[in-house]
Formats: sequence, structure tokens, C-alpha cells
Amino acid sequence: MDQQPAATSQVLVLHGPNLNLLGTREPEVYGHQTLAGINQALTELAAARQAALHIRQSNHEGVLIDTLHEMRGQVQGLLINPGAFTHYSYALRDAIAATGLPAVEVHLSNIYAREPFRQHSVLAPVCVGQISGFGWRSYILGLNALLDIIQNS
Amino acid sequence: MDQQPAATSQVLVLHGPNLNLLGTREPEVYGHQTLAGINQALTELAAARQAALHIRQSNHEGVLIDTLHEMRGQVQGLLINPGAFTHYSYALRDAIAATGLPAVEVHLSNIYAREPFRQHSVLAPVCVGQISGFGWRSYILGLNALLDIIQNS
Amino acid sequence: MDQQPAATSQVLVLHGPNLNLLGTREPEVYGHQTLAGINQALTELAAARQAALHIRQSNHEGVLIDTLHEMRGQVQGLLINPGAFTHYSYALRDAIAATGLPAVEVHLSNIYAREPFRQHSVLAPVCVGQISGFGWRSYILGLNALLDIIQNS
Amino acid sequence: MDQQPAATSQVLVLHGPNLNLLGTREPEVYGHQTLAGINQALTELAAARQAALHIRQSNHEGVLIDTLHEMRGQVQGLLINPGAFTHYSYALRDAIAATGLPAVEVHLSNIYAREPFRQHSVLAPVCVGQISGFGWRSYILGLNALLDIIQNS
Amino acid sequence: MDQQPAATSQVLVLHGPNLNLLGTREPEVYGHQTLAGINQALTELAAARQAALHIRQSNHEGVLIDTLHEMRGQVQGLLINPGAFTHYSYALRDAIAATGLPAVEVHLSNIYAREPFRQHSVLAPVCVGQISGFGWRSYILGLNALLDIIQNS
Amino acid sequence: MDQQPAATSQVLVLHGPNLNLLGTREPEVYGHQTLAGINQALTELAAARQAALHIRQSNHEGVLIDTLHEMRGQVQGLLINPGAFTHYSYALRDAIAATGLPAVEVHLSNIYAREPFRQHSVLAPVCVGQISGFGWRSYILGLNALLDIIQNS
Amino acid sequence: MDQQPAATSQVLVLHGPNLNLLGTREPEVYGHQTLAGINQALTELAAARQAALHIRQSNHEGVLIDTLHEMRGQVQGLLINPGAFTHYSYALRDAIAATGLPAVEVHLSNIYAREPFRQHSVLAPVCVGQISGFGWRSYILGLNALLDIIQNS
Amino acid sequence: MDQQPAATSQVLVLHGPNLNLLGTREPEVYGHQTLAGINQALTELAAARQAALHIRQSNHEGVLIDTLHEMRGQVQGLLINPGAFTHYSYALRDAIAATGLPAVEVHLSNIYAREPFRQHSVLAPVCVGQISGFGWRSYILGLNALLDIIQNS
Amino acid sequence: MDQQPAATSQVLVLHGPNLNLLGTREPEVYGHQTLAGINQALTELAAARQAALHIRQSNHEGVLIDTLHEMRGQVQGLLINPGAFTHYSYALRDAIAATGLPAVEVHLSNIYAREPFRQHSVLAPVCVGQISGFGWRSYILGLNALLDIIQNS
Amino acid sequence: MDQQPAATSQVLVLHGPNLNLLGTREPEVYGHQTLAGINQALTELAAARQAALHIRQSNHEGVLIDTLHEMRGQVQGLLINPGAFTHYSYALRDAIAATGLPAVEVHLSNIYAREPFRQHSVLAPVCVGQISGFGWRSYILGLNALLDIIQNS
Amino acid sequence: MDQQPAATSQVLVLHGPNLNLLGTREPEVYGHQTLAGINQALTELAAARQAALHIRQSNHEGVLIDTLHEMRGQVQGLLINPGAFTHYSYALRDAIAATGLPAVEVHLSNIYAREPFRQHSVLAPVCVGQISGFGWRSYILGLNALLDIIQNS
Amino acid sequence: MDQQPAATSQVLVLHGPNLNLLGTREPEVYGHQTLAGINQALTELAAARQAALHIRQSNHEGVLIDTLHEMRGQVQGLLINPGAFTHYSYALRDAIAATGLPAVEVHLSNIYAREPFRQHSVLAPVCVGQISGFGWRSYILGLNALLDIIQNS
Repeated sequence: MDQQPAATSQVLVLHGPNLNLLGTREPEVYGHQTLAGINQALTELAAARQAALHIRQSNHEGVLIDTLHEMRGQVQGLLINPGAFTHYSYALRDAIAATGLPAVEVHLSNIYAREPFRQHSVLAPVCVGQISGFGWRSYILGLNALLDIIQNS
Repeated sequence: MDQQPAATSQVLVLHGPNLNLLGTREPEVYGHQTLAGINQALTELAAARQAALHIRQSNHEGVLIDTLHEMRGQVQGLLINPGAFTHYSYALRDAIAATGLPAVEVHLSNIYAREPFRQHSVLAPVCVGQISGFGWRSYILGLNALLDIIQNS
Repeated sequence: MDQQPAATSQVLVLHGPNLNLLGTREPEVYGHQTLAGINQALTELAAARQAALHIRQSNHEGVLIDTLHEMRGQVQGLLINPGAFTHYSYALRDAIAATGLPAVEVHLSNIYAREPFRQHSVLAPVCVGQISGFGWRSYILGLNALLDIIQNS
Repeated sequence: MDQQPAATSQVLVLHGPNLNLLGTREPEVYGHQTLAGINQALTELAAARQAALHIRQSNHEGVLIDTLHEMRGQVQGLLINPGAFTHYSYALRDAIAATGLPAVEVHLSNIYAREPFRQHSVLAPVCVGQISGFGWRSYILGLNALLDIIQNS
Repeated sequence: MDQQPAATSQVLVLHGPNLNLLGTREPEVYGHQTLAGINQALTELAAARQAALHIRQSNHEGVLIDTLHEMRGQVQGLLINPGAFTHYSYALRDAIAATGLPAVEVHLSNIYAREPFRQHSVLAPVCVGQISGFGWRSYILGLNALLDIIQNS
Repeated sequence: MDQQPAATSQVLVLHGPNLNLLGTREPEVYGHQTLAGINQALTELAAARQAALHIRQSNHEGVLIDTLHEMRGQVQGLLINPGAFTHYSYALRDAIAATGLPAVEVHLSNIYAREPFRQHSVLAPVCVGQISGFGWRSYILGLNALLDIIQNS
Repeated sequence: MDQQPAATSQVLVLHGPNLNLLGTREPEVYGHQTLAGINQALTELAAARQAALHIRQSNHEGVLIDTLHEMRGQVQGLLINPGAFTHYSYALRDAIAATGLPAVEVHLSNIYAREPFRQHSVLAPVCVGQISGFGWRSYILGLNALLDIIQNS
Repeated sequence: MDQQPAATSQVLVLHGPNLNLLGTREPEVYGHQTLAGINQALTELAAARQAALHIRQSNHEGVLIDTLHEMRGQVQGLLINPGAFTHYSYALRDAIAATGLPAVEVHLSNIYAREPFRQHSVLAPVCVGQISGFGWRSYILGLNALLDIIQNS
Repeated sequence: MDQQPAATSQVLVLHGPNLNLLGTREPEVYGHQTLAGINQALTELAAARQAALHIRQSNHEGVLIDTLHEMRGQVQGLLINPGAFTHYSYALRDAIAATGLPAVEVHLSNIYAREPFRQHSVLAPVCVGQISGFGWRSYILGLNALLDIIQNS
Repeated sequence: MDQQPAATSQVLVLHGPNLNLLGTREPEVYGHQTLAGINQALTELAAARQAALHIRQSNHEGVLIDTLHEMRGQVQGLLINPGAFTHYSYALRDAIAATGLPAVEVHLSNIYAREPFRQHSVLAPVCVGQISGFGWRSYILGLNALLDIIQNS
Repeated sequence: MDQQPAATSQVLVLHGPNLNLLGTREPEVYGHQTLAGINQALTELAAARQAALHIRQSNHEGVLIDTLHEMRGQVQGLLINPGAFTHYSYALRDAIAATGLPAVEVHLSNIYAREPFRQHSVLAPVCVGQISGFGWRSYILGLNALLDIIQNS
Repeated sequence: MDQQPAATSQVLVLHGPNLNLLGTREPEVYGHQTLAGINQALTELAAARQAALHIRQSNHEGVLIDTLHEMRGQVQGLLINPGAFTHYSYALRDAIAATGLPAVEVHLSNIYAREPFRQHSVLAPVCVGQISGFGWRSYILGLNALLDIIQNS
């Protein structure tokens, strides 16, 4: 996990399965931005808003859960694109709830305009809010939303 | 409808049923901001981003549809909080689709953490994206998202 | 809307779509009483119980919602026969909840002995109680029930 | 069963399972009135309206059915709070239908605002009408409704 | 329970709830034969086929179960019209299975041509076979079928 | 089709698909009787009851329908084991209804104790009654039931 | 509403929401004909068949219901393209039933070849018949069908 | 199959199961016209519109499919009343799709006002359009619709 | 009911329908222990833990409810094997809830490895916990669990 | 049916409805191979593996069943592409089960990537295995699989 | 994995995802005991009953499966709290079945009194039994139950 | 992962959870072949067809996904037995789709003849085809199918 210098607001950013392929995987659905590019944009936004990011991508449900456990005392909020775990990982849901952190769920594509199985998020009930359909900008909107919550509460 | 001076980007903002009561209706669910306050914040954001807003609230499905028809040649995008019409107004869905405009759907509360009937949006498949759960900030995020789309395409 | 002189208890009475045809529409289902006759009987009962009624019928969902908004500061309770809006108007449901008023839902026919779609009320969860199946007397029973609540609380 | 002197209208009042505990059982749901208190109020109303009541409470489905069979030639109507039998006793439903009597179904709580299993009455299709949600007053409203039917037909 | 003199084949005949009203209850559905008449016809058929019947009707699920328990060592088969218990009495189902007796389920009306809830028998999987729709003759056919099984095995 | 000499009651007996294999096909489910044996037993019973049978087996839905059309003026009743057509042949259902004849549906096995798809008969609503689970004796019981109906009406 | 001179058969033609956009809205689905063009063709057909049309389009459910109420004494039949109200407007269904008029439901596109929600019409059970999939010709076929009914009954 | 002399437009007309009984089968549902009468009316209409018909009725799904295969090179369109095959014959659906011909589906009765199983057509998605509920006139309307398509494309 | 001398903890033990047959009924499913044997083992355990048991078995739902009502002031907890009432007796559920006692639900067999209907307990939501699948030891485990709760609270 | 000279392994190959059109019907779904070409390839493979084929295509469910009955004593296995009968022909399922032969089900297209109705095979539970999605090669794979089973058992 | 000295009975104890947080995660639902405390109590109980435990917690489904594979030859039983894997991990289910070990499933909370998704265990059908709702005592009860099975078989 | 010398066609072979136990796990369902044996047979077949295999088994969903990502540029096709991940791993589905490789899904047992949960593959829609039910031969058939696709395209 890429550790960053301490700042006012500490945020955990989690990317779920297959998001490491961004930019090369089905670009007509997920866009041409790479994950590195998105992380770069998020880091710049964080810097501009007095925040530091702790970023992790994994294709392993268990690694995402472990990371949530490890970081829960060190961050004030969670920005997560759960990828396909959105639709069945009750273990990830429990992990998010267990942290007690405000969480913002983001999706690159509009999941409500796709296959039926993609239209249900088992994580949504334990998140503050959800942003879906704006490509890489979903992340930017999501980090802004999360920092508004953290820095205004 | 409150007409505003011409600007680079023209955006239609529609508020659905009962949103005129914002600030007084179930504030523990919908927050303490009034609709006037939200419109003020949106207008300021629009001004800062070279955009003008055309804002309308109605409790009448037909009025929202009529407004979409009237404005479709004059705006480049739609920001809509459909209120309870989210869940059953196929006529509003058809109207949005008929405009051919990029549409952003926003919700004050996280609809996926509420009653089952609120967890399905019949409008989502004809919108670009959806933002849900951030209170009045859902509108701010939504307008930013919409202007990004309009001004970058 | 037919305004009445001020009295101890102020009650809003709303009649939903097609109820203006009462007495002529499928009398084997809905009975031979006209809406004027029912309003007359309700008004007499109200007078006898120190209450004044504000009565409105509309075939427009939006008009019923507007009326609820306008009257919510002026009445202590709602008596409503939502007609077919019973089965799908989540907007009307939200409007009733937004008023914070005790509401009594009445139906002329026994909706639980009819077509499946008529056996579900989306309004019931935001009403105090429901009376169904007693023809025009459902209104009389409903107004009595509502006044008992208002005048005893 | 508490037999009463003959009068113009004879009415059978049946209370289903657990209603003998009224006033002590979950009073936040079912109220503080005892069953004896309700029966007293019903008896007074009946006396005022030239009616006599035959009242029975039982936790046994079979006893309620037996009572319906025994009394069917002696009464002109049925007032019933079926308690939890509401949701599954098809045998009680058949017994009510077999009597051919007008039946009024009453519920203390608003069953349509509670758990899903409580929102379906298997008895409703064989009753004239239903009154739900007004606490002990549901009985008073129900007896008035039933006597209106009996004494006006 | 009407005890009869010992004979070659001993059969338990159970009639479920409301069947005591036969001949008077909804005759257009259930026919004009009384239960006594049916029992008489069954007894005559039994006599002609070297069988003795043990007959019981009850509106109490528990009484039917108790009877099954008591008689299970004394009879070789069961003829049962479960009435409305057909549709929900898993306790009766378990009792029939517990006896280990061949059981024949009969219905006066064709349950598959009636309301949806009547089209499912929870008892059928523990019975040898089912006869439905022939009025009082369903019993005659059922006893013949049962005796064929008992006397041929 | 095996034509028989004229008699008082004329009955059409239809056997559906795969019943020609009886006695050899899954005998643990369907028994060891052959179709010829069953037809022989039915013919003897018919003779004893002043009836003549017109018997046809086919694996073709269309042939069964054609036969129903041809024979409808010549018979007074129908005895049918529809085999697997039971579960989906709405065309056969319409053909039975079109004849206007009393029809008795029989099944060798207890279809309600088998796979879910076998537990629904699309023909049942247009038949007088159904007999299921008694092996070849289902036919005998069914013919007796049918002749009772024909000869008593 | 466009009033026309009196003639032998008077017909009400109702166009539901978004149909005012015909010709410009998703022409690959709904065709290039405008509503004015369709109304012109219908009017010519009516003239040729001794009929006069009363035509109304509205995006307001309430306006369509009001129109049905107003015109019910003046016309002998209804031709309706309910647009998206097809799928949820039980109020419009009740209004059609309340008129007692023969009604013909038409759809430009074949609704049974589209999204699941479009494959169910809540109005169909109160209409004489339905014509779906022939573009603007669905209206012509529908008016011919309606006039056949009116002028032959 | 009744072959007719060559003409401008060649049309295949298929009648499904039990339609040969028209005029005698449940006339309160299907009307008093015979199939011969309908075919006569269709043939006259065809002659008036420079079309020739190839007509076939069968109770055999396989025969209808064979006919579609044989005729697909010789006709420009299909008019079909699939009878009960409407609800389950995926083989017929595939056969229609395989012909690549424009197909019009007609029903005598309004299938959407009947039993639930009749409210779903498995053929509709491969047909151009559907006409339902106008008795024998459904055929006339359907042939007109089909010829409009063939002769205008 | 077998009354026992007063002791520190008083526990009601209820056995539902058909459990009186234990040891003889389907021993491959329910084991060879008799109910008397189980009661003996429970009584010994109770004695060892300073508790007294009040034990009742009944095949009558009403008797189980009556017993709960009678004993609710005299015991501190409930151990119940509801038998088949597990799956449908909402009346028993309400009775347990009405007592306000901690309740432990036990099952001899693993109900989640059996028929679908056995996999749902309508009582579970009003019990503290559930033990399923350990044969007669389910009772021993359940009594230990209950006494832990009673004696530690 | 094309009879072939005797060989070590005898295999029945059945092609269901519309497969006679292969190569011309929707080639983008089903490929360009004709049925004759597939049969030729299968025959060559059979010859190479000491097997003889008995091949039949029919659009008639009854013909496929008849063929199964006739050939069951003469072959050691079945290779079947049931076409659309896959989804509803329980009669064909019973016929396959009745033969007691090992059966291999093949599909040209991947039925699990198509419309929902195509994703369920009622035949699969009575087949040894299934091969789906490889175009005409599904047959080659299937025959190899079947011969492996026949020649190794 | 914490290895322990050899003893008479060897038991594998598996804790699923998020259970490492016990005592700090939502204590109102899961209690204040830590996992270390529970393991200590289990180890003491094991020692008292001549058993040794092999304990593992993981948030990784794969690790739990690997552990089951590794230990299956070394232990005589499994005690498992699968956490959220309860509801979807068919891979874990297969792993448990593959070990052939008696397995006892425990849950801290009463899963049948929580959200619908928590009320279904995909593991239950491959376990001997289940204990749910007794907090950390569920483990104690479960280990006792498991040792009874191991040491008595 | 077992790397093999370069060859014309490179194929990734993935084995999902619990397949490492093959030969010892429930052999009556999955056969007696070990995974090593299957891999040996596959390798020999590959060699004979100018192909090299890259084989990996894992009980970790994340490892299978990682492997797909790593190998996607190095192989031309995927042969996968997803084990229980078949039924819920949408993450694996997305990973397969992301590779853009032709994928063949194989199952040892006939999943369509087993428990309902095993009858649905969430991976099937992103695979070319599926082979199910032929034991270890499913792999051989699958590799042949895959190589036919790779080497012929």
C-alpha cells in the first residue's frame, strides 16, 4: 500500500477486482483512464483539500477486508469502488460496517443501466452515499463528497 | 420558471414532488436545507462555471414532462431530483429519453438504505449517472458532474 | 375547495380520482350515493362533533399533493379516499408523511376481496388506520375515528 | 360464552388468540385497554343500539370454529378480531363463509404498517369489510359498521 | 368416535374442519349430501368389503392428530378429507407420516379449479394418492382405493 | 382407434405420450401393468356397467386433439391420462373444454409427491375431477367416477 | 380540445404522455409521422365512415381522466394510445371503466418485443381489444375496429 | 392446403389448434363465425387488395412448422392465430423467426382480459405486431395491417 | 402438566405436535430416544443446575398457547421444540412474544437440511436463539443455554 | 430415417424442430453448416470409431418420441439436439428417461448467453451431460463423448 | 495456526471474516468478548474434555478452504463460525463436504432475527447442526455438541 | 504455476476451489481421477495438438483472477472448471471478460441434474461454450473444443 505523508484528513481508497486493468478492459464500458491516472488525479485533489490518501487495489476480497481492519484507526473515511464484489461480498459489507467510518461507494459505469445482477449493491446500506455512471469522474466526485463529510462533521 | 441570463452552458434543473417542503419535511431524513437555499447554492456554482440554470419544482408529473418538452431545445443537460416519481413514473422516463439530453439523477437520502420500494429507479436507465445520499450536496455534486459532461463533450 | 367556518377541529377531506362519478360509476361495486351526498353527510357529522371540514376532490395527483401542502398548517387531521392512487402514488404517500398529520384511509369497496392489484395500499404505512368495504359508511366511520384521535390526543 | 338477554339484533363477537392478554401484552403495540374493558364498551354500545352480544375469546382455532357453527342460526352478524389466525387459518375462513353471516374484521394495530406476514388476511375475502389500526376503537367502529349493515338490510 | 365391530380390515376415516356442516354449507360447491349420509354410505360399502370403519370429524387440528396417534396401532389405513387443513397443517402431515399407514386424501370439490390457495396440499406428499372433485362420491372412490391397497398388499 | 359395439354410455379413453410403454418404463414408478392390460380391465368394467369405450393412445398432441374433435358428438364423457402433456398442453386443455364433455383426469403415480414440474396440471381446471397415485387402479376408479356422472345426470 | 361538427358516430381519441413529440422522439422506435399527421389521417378516415372525432393529447394523467369524464355522455367509443400510462395508471383504467364505453387501446411499437415493464398493460382488461406494433397504422386499424364495433352494435 | 392463383402479394394464413371448431366452441368467448366464414372473408379482402392467400389450419404444432418451412420462399408475409400455441410453442416461434417474414399475430378474444396463462405470448417478440380482442374482425384488421406492410415496403 | 418442587430457576418446557411419538416415529430422522427419556434427562440436568422444570406436550396449538399464558408469571424462561408449528403458527409466536420471557427454540433434526418448508421458522424472530440438528442433545444444549441466560442476567 | 449397416456401437441421433433449416436460418446465431453437412461429419466420425448412426430430424414432438420408442432396443446411446423442445417438452424428457439409454444433449449456440427462456433445459436432468455453444462442433464433441461412454462401459 | 499438543479428540475451529474484530465491532450485536477470550474459553473446555483444538481465523475464503484441506486427516470434527461467508460461499460448503467431517455451525447473533440475507445459510445442509443467537456461548455449546458427537460415535 | 515449453497454441487451464481433492472427494459424484491425472491427460492431448498448457489450481478467487490478468497476453484461450465459483463469482466473470480470450467452461458432474443452486452459472454468458457431466472427459472434450476454436480462427 502506497503510504503518503500525514495531513489533516486521512482517507482510505479501495479499488476492487479487475480495476487494475482499467484503460485496457472493455474501454467502451469503463473508459480509457488507467488506475494510475485516476490515483494521480485523486492524490492531487486530496492535496488541494488538505487530505492524504492511502490507496490499495486488490483482486482478493480478503485483502480488502484486511486493509479495512488495519487502517480503520488511521483514517477518517473510505472511498471504495468495490467492482464486482458490489453484488455479493457480504464479508466486505460487514468489514465496512465494522470500521464505523463514513464510506462513499463509486462506480465507473451506471450500474442501473446494465445487467440485472449489477443493479443490486449489497454494500450500499452501510455506505453514506453512492455515485454511479460518471467514469473516472465518479472517483473525483466521491472524494469531494467524502471530504465534505469528514471536514464538515 | 425562473429564467436566468444567457451563458455558455444552459442547464435545466427539475425538482419533483414534495421537494418544495425541504427543510421542514422529515429533516432527520432530508436535512434542514430549504429548496430556495439549494437553488441559491446551485446558481452560485453555475455562475462560477459559466452556466445558467432554468429551475422548476412541481408536484405534478405532467408539469415536469411539459417543462422537459419546452426546454429541450434550449438546454444542454438536465439535473433532476425526481422525488417519489423515481419509483413509478415511466412517463417521466420517456420524457427524459425523448429530450436526448444528458441527465444526472440526484437523491438527498441514500435510497438504497431505505424501504425496498425506494431502492428501484425507473429513470436510472435513461440517465448518465446517479448520485444518492449526500443531502443537499448531492445537487452540488450532480451539477458539477453534469457540467463536466456538457463542457467536455 | 369548499371552505367552512372555523370550529374546534379542522379536518381535510380528500377524494381521489373518479370519485366525482360516484353514484353513476359501477354502482354494483361503489353504491348509489353521490359524492355530494357523502360530503353532506360528513359535514353534518362534523358539525355535530364540533369539527369543520375542508373538502377537495381531484383526478390530479399533483392537485391532491398541493392541497395537502397548503392545508397542513390549518388542519389537525386527514380523511382520504385515495381511489386508484392507493396502489401506486408514492408521491401522495410522501406528501401525507410530510404533513405529519394523523391520516385515516377509507375505501368504499373491500379492496381485499377484489383484483390483486387493489389489495396493496402504498399509503397504508403512513396512515393511522384503514377502513374498507362499508360503502359510503366507510367515510362516516373514518371521520368518527379521525375525530376520536384528534379530540382525544 | 357469556350469554345475554334476547334483543332485536344478535351479534357474535369473537376474539382470537392472545387477545385475553390485552392491556398487558406489548402495550406499545396493542394499547392499555383490557379485553374486559373492550367487552364492556361493546356491550354498552350494543345496548344503546338495541343489540345483544355473544362474546367469546379463545386461543383454539377449533373453538372459534365450533362457536361459529353453534351460533350461526342465532345471530345476524359477526364481529371478529382473528388475532394471528388472520394470516393462516383457512379453516376459520371457511367457517365464516359457511355461516353466510355478514362479518366485520377488526384489528387493533394497523396491520399494513407492520411485518410483511401481518399484511395479508386470509379472512378478508369472506368479510364485508375491515377496520385496522384504531386500537380498542377499531372494535367500536366495527360494531357500529356491523349494526348499520344488519339493521339497514 | 363411532366404534364398530371388528372385521377383516380396519380403516380410520377422518373428516376435517367444517365438514360437519355438509349439506347446508355452500351446497353449490360442496353438494347436498350430509356428513351422516356420507358416513352411512361409507359404512355400507365397508360392510360389503369386509371392513370396519372408525369415523371422526373435528374442527380441531389437535383432535385429528390425537386420533391418528390413538388409532395407528388399530387400523390398516386412513381415509381423510382434511378440509382447509389441506393447505397449511404441517402438524397433520407429520402425524400421518408418523402412523406409517397408507393414506388416501379426498376432496369433495375439484381443488385445482378453485382459488390458488386451495390448489396446494401440504398433505399430498405423505399420502398414497388423491381423489378430488366428485362430491360425496370422492369418499366412495377413496374407500375403494384404500381397501384395494390394504387387501391386496 | 379400437371401435366397440354401441351401448348405453359411450366413453372416450385417451392415453397420452409414453403410456404405450407401460409395464416396461420405470416400473418402480409406473407399475408392471401394460397398457393392453389396463385397456382390457377398463373394457370389462365398461361392459359390466353398460358402457362402450373408444380407446386411443398417442405420443402426438395433435392426434389427441383431433380425436377429441372427431369423437365429441359420439361420446358422453372423457377419461384421460394426459401423461406429460398434463403440465404444458394448453392446446389439449382448450380441446377438452371445447368438447363440453365431463372429463376425468387420471394419473398412475401421485404427481403431488414428485418433481415440482409434475405438481401442476394445466388441464385440471377444465376437468370434473382428478384421481392420482393408485397405479392402474386410477383408471378403474376414474371410469367408475365418470360413469357415475354420465349415468346419473 | 379540437371540437368537430356533429355526425353519426362520435369518438373520443386520447393521446397520452410524450406523444406530442411524435416524429422527433426516437424515430427508430416510434416512426417519423407527427401527431398532427396522425390526427389528420384519423379525421379523414372518420369522415369517410360517418364519424366525428374529439381529439386530445396530454402529458397529465388528470387531464386525460377529466376529459374522459366530460366526454362520456357525448361519444360512443374511445380510441386511446395511453403512452407510458399504459403500465401504471390504475386511475386511468378506472376512468375508462367508469365511462362504460367500448375502448380500443393502440400502441405504435410492439410493446411485447420491448423492455419487460412495457409488456404489461394495466388498461387492457377494461378495453375491448388492443392493437400493437404497426406504427401510425395502429391508429388507423384501431379506429376502423372501434367504428365496426360502434356501428354494428 | 388450399392453393390459390398467383397474384401480386402472397400471404400465408395459419390457424392453430381448435380453431377448426370456431362457431361451435364456447361461442360466448370466440363468437359465432365459423372458420370457413372467416377464410371466405379473408379471401375476398385479399382479392380486393391484389393478394392471394395460402390457408392452413392444424392442431399439430409440427404441421404448422412444416408449412412455414415449405411456404417461406413463396409468400411475403404471415398472418397467424396461434391458438393455445401462443403460450408455449417456442418451436413455432423459432420457425417464424427462421422464415424472416413479417408476421402479424391475431387473437379473437382479448387475451389480456383472460386467465393469467393466456396473457403471455411467446411468439410476440418475433412478430411485427399483434391484434387482440375483435372477434373475427381481428383477422380482417390483421390482413389489412400485413398487406400495408408488404405492399409499402 | 407435571408440576415440580420450587427451586431457584423455573423453566417452562414445551413440546409441540407429534413429539409424544418420539422413539417410534421415523427413528432414522428423529432418533430412538422417547420423550419420557428426554424429559428425564432434562429434569436431571435442571436439578444439577438449581432449576425446576414445568413440562408439557400437546398436539393442540391452543393448549400450548394457554400454557404459555398460565405459566408466564411463574417461570423465568422457555425451552420449546415447536414441532411442525415452527413453520406456520403465528399465534404461538405472538404468545411467546407476549410472555416477554427469554425463549430457546430447539429441533431434533437439522431443519436446514430438509424439505424447503421446514427451513423457515416463524418463531425464530421472537426467540433468543436456536439449536438444530443434535437429536435429543439439542434439548440438553438448549436447557444449558437457557439457564446460562437466566442465571447470568 | 436413414438406416446404416450394422456396426459395433449403434447410436440414435435426433435433431429437433427447425434444425432442417440449418445453414439458412439466422446463420449469425446458428452458423453456416447445413444439417446434411453435420450428418455427413457425424457419419464419418462414427465410421472411424466403429459406430453406426440412425439419424432423424423432425419438427413433430410426437415423431421424435415415436422414434425413441422404436429404436430403444436397437441402439446403445442417444445424441440429441432438441431445438426449442429443450425448453418445454416434458413428453420428450419422459421418452428419453423411458429408453434408459445414456443421452448426450447438444446445442449449437451457447444457450446460457441468450434469452432467459433458452437458459433452462427440461431434458438436462435425464441426460448424462450437455455440450453447448460450439456450433456444429457441439455435435462432434457430443458424439465423441457418447461413444466414450458406450464403448467404455 | 496455533498448534496444540496431541490429545484424544482433535478438533478444527474456524473463524470466518471480521471475527478478529470481536469485542470492538458493533458490540450491541456481537457482544464484548474478544476472539482471544473465546479461544481461551474453548481451549479450557477442550482440555476438560480430553480434546485439543486447532484454531484459525481468516478473512480469506481461500485460507479457510486451504486449512480445511490441510487438517482434514488430522482432526475428527469441525467447529465453524463462517461469518458472512455463511450466506454465499458455496466453495466453503464444498470444502466442508469434501472433508467428510462432522461439522457444527455457530453464530453469535440469532441470524433468523436479522436482515433477510442473513437468514439463509448455504453451509447448513452439509453441517450436522447449527447453534445461533447465544453470543460467545454459541461456541461453548457448539464445542460441547461436537465433542458429544465425536466421542460417542 | 507449471510453465511449459513454448508451442504453437498457448492455453491457460484454471481449476477452481476443492478440485485439488479430486479422486478423494465424493468420488460417487466427481469420479476417481486425481487432478494430477487429469492434468497429465490434458498435457498429452495438448502435445498431440501442438499446444502448450499453463495450469493452475487455487482455492482463492483472487489467485484465479490474478492469474488471468498475468497470463492474458501470453495465451490464446482459457479452459476453466470454476468449481463452486461458477455460482457466485462475478469478479471471476469480469476477469474472464476482461481478458477477451475465448473461454470454455467445463464441469465434471452434470450441474443441471443437481441442487438448484448448482444449475446457474454466472460465468456462462462470457464463455464461448460449456461442457458438463462427462467426468474427467469434460476436460478432454473442452480442450479439444478450445483448440478447434483457437487453431481455426
